[in-house]
Amino acid sequence: MKIGVIGAGAGGLHLGLFLQKHGVETMLFSERTPDEIRSSRLPNTAIHWHNVVSHDRELGVDHWEGGQVCNYFWVGGGGLPEPLVFQGNFKAKSQIVDNRMYCATLLEDYIKRGGAVSYGHIQADDLTGLSEKHDLVVISSGRGSLTELFPRVPEYSLTKPQRLLCTGIYRGITNREPEGLGINFLIGTGEFYEMPYLTFDGKHTALFIFIVPGGSWEVLMGNRYDDDPKKFNATVLGLITEHFPHIRERIRETEFGLRSNLDILQGSITPTVRRAYAQLPNGKYVIAIGDLHAVNDPLTGQGVGCATNGAFVVGQAILDDGLAFDERFCKRVEEQMWSWTGDATAWNNYMLQVPPAPNTVDLILAAAKNQTLADAFADNFAAPTKNWNVMATLERSRNLLHMLGMGSPMIDAALTSKAGTA
Amino acid sequence: MKIGVIGAGAGGLHLGLFLQKHGVETMLFSERTPDEIRSSRLPNTAIHWHNVVSHDRELGVDHWEGGQVCNYFWVGGGGLPEPLVFQGNFKAKSQIVDNRMYCATLLEDYIKRGGAVSYGHIQADDLTGLSEKHDLVVISSGRGSLTELFPRVPEYSLTKPQRLLCTGIYRGITNREPEGLGINFLIGTGEFYEMPYLTFDGKHTALFIFIVPGGSWEVLMGNRYDDDPKKFNATVLGLITEHFPHIRERIRETEFGLRSNLDILQGSITPTVRRAYAQLPNGKYVIAIGDLHAVNDPLTGQGVGCATNGAFVVGQAILDDGLAFDERFCKRVEEQMWSWTGDATAWNNYMLQVPPAPNTVDLILAAAKNQTLADAFADNFAAPTKNWNVMATLERSRNLLHMLGMGSPMIDAALTSKAGTA
Repeated sequence: MKIGVIGAGAGGLHLGLFLQKHGVETMLFSERTPDEIRSSRLPNTAIHWHNVVSHDRELGVDHWEGGQVCNYFWVGGGGLPEPLVFQGNFKAKSQIVDNRMYCATLLEDYIKRGGAVSYGHIQADDLTGLSEKHDLVVISSGRGSLTELFPRVPEYSLTKPQRLLCTGIYRGITNREPEGLGINFLIGTGEFYEMPYLTFDGKHTALFIFIVPGGSWEVLMGNRYDDDPKKFNATVLGLITEHFPHIRERIRETEFGLRSNLDILQGSITPTVRRAYAQLPNGKYVIAIGDLHAVNDPLTGQGVGCATNGAFVVGQAILDDGLAFDERFCKRVEEQMWSWTGDATAWNNYMLQVPPAPNTVDLILAAAKNQTLADAFADNFAAPTKNWNVMATLERSRNLLHMLGMGSPMIDAALTSKAGTA
Repeated sequence: MKIGVIGAGAGGLHLGLFLQKHGVETMLFSERTPDEIRSSRLPNTAIHWHNVVSHDRELGVDHWEGGQVCNYFWVGGGGLPEPLVFQGNFKAKSQIVDNRMYCATLLEDYIKRGGAVSYGHIQADDLTGLSEKHDLVVISSGRGSLTELFPRVPEYSLTKPQRLLCTGIYRGITNREPEGLGINFLIGTGEFYEMPYLTFDGKHTALFIFIVPGGSWEVLMGNRYDDDPKKFNATVLGLITEHFPHIRERIRETEFGLRSNLDILQGSITPTVRRAYAQLPNGKYVIAIGDLHAVNDPLTGQGVGCATNGAFVVGQAILDDGLAFDERFCKRVEEQMWSWTGDATAWNNYMLQVPPAPNTVDLILAAAKNQTLADAFADNFAAPTKNWNVMATLERSRNLLHMLGMGSPMIDAALTSKAGTA
């Protein structure tokens, strides 16, 4: 048996390493060599919640010590008399390692362990040929022509970006102790994530700015670092100074600025779910995992979690049922992946709503007062099903709040209004 | 939280015991008291493959020692020059305990552990009232008006019985050593199961006769034990003498006969899958498990396995996500149950085909020569997904046979003929 894995991001690497660990022959198709990956532009500032770290450990590629023990939440705007500030503790540490270091290192692990790699760009036209040479081809790359093969699922997809995105690695910020992620919600304007960021020359800080289109932060998107680095840095610092004094006070102004011109990414994502498998003209099936299956706004940081969950689901299915990579196989894989990715997608899209839904508000108000709830909310960034179980309906959130002895004023108002309308 | 469980068969009891073990308050609705169950007519001669025994152990209700270590297969008719005879060994023992003893004992366990029981017959009209008194009502009873609430799923249901059924407990047969199930396929005529059967006065033998409608065994169905016990016994003995000398040689003729007039069951089942949940007029949902969700012909003995799988899926879901028993909860439960029950149903219905499918024939021919395959086929009666993985398509079976170095003549012919037609 030989499995082709297209894409050397977290999903493709985890699948390659998983199959390798279990003695299944693989060919990994990577656009870049490890050195090329290291010297590339910042591809993302992905968070690895502890579900991802746990998979790294299982694959023996947990090279990085330390990590974050909590989310530091700050919620302001939206008519709140003053910002809500609370800390939600994780059951296990998250890690934020420069994706270029992470992927290059895992690719080297895979190679050192005897894994085969083919370098180059794979296009849709290549798939039939590849499918003839492999028992199964799994695609973990959301790029270019490969996406066209997998039909978009309108039911679970949005039609336009919900945020404009600006993320980069910055010098000159003293990270908090204990190490945690700063998750700042400025209701109606955007979200501002402050993340201790381990990169090539040690630990700096990633600032991920999520901009509500049409809001006051949109000015940042017209500001390109390459055009005027000083102006860009000043704009970011100005935004922090205006809204987030608790971050500003840890900034060493003379040092502050983007780490390098490769360390920034600006753009936006239209949350899109695609079918997780497709049949080629020769009758063989190919499977999509990760961003190719479902690409979400990075708001709750579910990208790598979905990708590695997909990798493990597909890998385990290959071990359990390698008799035929037919529609039965693909359908089951899609269902199993969707039980994670569907909830991650639904929860993430819900959290993108502007203004926030009544239960989002009530839960955040309650979490600011209830440590159990704050910890669960934070820890469940690593288990999106659990957060979506709580938030999927107003009634679910209300039931939890009442179990905790907390009120649910916004939910109650919404349900009353709904009952009145009905 | 309080869960109502309707039905004190294996599914309802396992769910009640599971929730009890995890500290969830339950009310079990049973038609009969333990003593009434013990003195009732034989309800079935269900096999507990080791997946069920393992659940008994987990619930601390594994009261019965011993069990069966293998299936003794005998396949004759269908143009075979001589019968195929082979033995498939289990990884863990199955048990066949009189269902009346089993259910009465588990109901007593539940009561001894402090479980609440309400005795009486529940009808569809009672459900709304019960739903108001419980957070969730789960129905594990395929009887009467309760079925009407759950829509039949035509895609997975058959429209008429595939076998006429005659099962009973007999004296006068010396069970084989080591203890195993005799599974005799007389192709085109029916199946004859010989099962060491632990009942109130020790171990006897259940004979389960599966009759292909219109075949020569149908005569048995016109023969009612109550009308003429001697004639009935003589008919069964005649059938054994004619077809199964390997059973006949272990029969002590003077003792042979049905154990009592309560120990027989004749009838038939139309394999039917229903939706696993329904909404009551008051908006609350009720869940169906076991036979109410999917009732199958007992050919491969999947009934209790599906029921206890359903019980554990629902029980675990209640522990994991008890915030609301809404459509989200029900849908997820249905999906999880279906990943077992769907495969059990598909495999069972496939095995009912007359004449048997090409891959069924090739696999049985191969199992008679290959101990690995024989053992896997037998053991996977406890894991229907694994047997269905092998049999779901001709290609899957062929791939397995070729991996084992075996031929696939019937499959090859069918695929060639299919390719010729296409």
